Amino acid sequence: MTKNLHVCLTPSLLPLYNVEEYIVVIVDIFRATSSICYGIDNGAEAIIPVAEVDECLAYRDQETGYLLAAERNGEVVAGFDFGNSPFSYTKEKVGGKTIVLTTTNGTYALHRSRHAKRVVIGSFLNLTALCDWLKTQNENILLVCAGWKHNFNLEDTLFSGAVVEQLKGGNYKTDDPAIAANDLYQLGRGDLDAYLAKTSHSERLKKLGIEADIAFCLNVDITAAIPVLEGERLVKLQFY
Amino acid sequence: MTKNLHVCLTPSLLPLYNVEEYIVVIVDIFRATSSICYGIDNGAEAIIPVAEVDECLAYRDQETGYLLAAERNGEVVAGFDFGNSPFSYTKEKVGGKTIVLTTTNGTYALHRSRHAKRVVIGSFLNLTALCDWLKTQNENILLVCAGWKHNFNLEDTLFSGAVVEQLKGGNYKTDDPAIAANDLYQLGRGDLDAYLAKTSHSERLKKLGIEADIAFCLNVDITAAIPVLEGERLVKLQFY
Repeated sequence: MTKNLHVCLTPSLLPLYNVEEYIVVIVDIFRATSSICYGIDNGAEAIIPVAEVDECLAYRDQETGYLLAAERNGEVVAGFDFGNSPFSYTKEKVGGKTIVLTTTNGTYALHRSRHAKRVVIGSFLNLTALCDWLKTQNENILLVCAGWKHNFNLEDTLFSGAVVEQLKGGNYKTDDPAIAANDLYQLGRGDLDAYLAKTSHSERLKKLGIEADIAFCLNVDITAAIPVLEGERLVKLQFY
Repeated sequence: MTKNLHVCLTPSLLPLYNVEEYIVVIVDIFRATSSICYGIDNGAEAIIPVAEVDECLAYRDQETGYLLAAERNGEVVAGFDFGNSPFSYTKEKVGGKTIVLTTTNGTYALHRSRHAKRVVIGSFLNLTALCDWLKTQNENILLVCAGWKHNFNLEDTLFSGAVVEQLKGGNYKTDDPAIAANDLYQLGRGDLDAYLAKTSHSERLKKLGIEADIAFCLNVDITAAIPVLEGERLVKLQFY
């Protein structure tokens, strides 16, 4: 049976979709979902996404042993263990740990999607693993771009287009945002870094001195784990 | 001085912009803004955009002589003079007349943008005339895509990309939506009709039997008038 393959270009547009009808993939390439994929693949027990910095701090009071990660406007919030950089999510740092994470855009999209059939996390790091799993699901799929300050951004859209590309040939009906995302991916796939260098967001992140993070987030298929939302926690999806 | 050239991909995203800071161009290619451009170019005295069918009917009670145009979901509302088809906006039909118009998406975008520095109407029909005028304005420009049911559509985005193309070389700073729109335009410009044939909207309009309307709306530069919002009325912009 034909399923829908839709792209929600920004969380502001989520009210236009019945998320209950979809498996939702959250996409926040620079850098939340890339770091989440990397952290879960590196053995983090769980990552708990929260919407506000205050919620994040409340976890510190509850129990010791949590790592606290908070970022606002691309920078680590003062007093937190770390922010959104994938280099903070190495085996050494996160293996066996639970991380409480709040970011500017990514957790907002996550919270708005939590009533979906399933919420999983996508990034270039786990692209093919994610798509291979999606192909087995026979469900409607909604790629939710976290965007930038509730608006459209190119990197999340491009990644959505990469997913659409891998799911081609499956029995999916695409909407205009999915068609556009896939066309933009065709333009950028040859050199993601060069293509995205022209975006406003990339320019902004470069000003923050995190070019290395950006380059890392554009590595394709270096992880196999699919983070999935279970209750309030993102954990490694178990499937066979 | 550098000005902003931004694209608002759907009216749902308008709250993210301070429309007061921009000249807003309303874009609803299939078919409202194409028909408005054609009607004003063909000598319509004014076109009054209203949000609701009931408002439209109220004009009939006020005064005779108005032409009433209403469309919902791509079809003429029963009892109205006509809907959104550009072929209803010929010299013979609209010359000297005032038309009260309500459409699904276009008038919604218009009403949400009414506090802009200026609100003008764009379509492929008046593309170059519009861009030539915009170049003389030295103002921030926001292209507002009417979209489809408050979501993104390809045809309005592609037109926005065509405007971005003509304004290149001017001193404008583009945002990610403008970059994406222009890239999509590069893909589609060689054959707009073929490119847009793959969209969901085009498919839907074809089901309504209005292929001729669609083809007409993709005519580039067949009109010179720029409709501008003056109070509640769209009239021909006077400039020399």
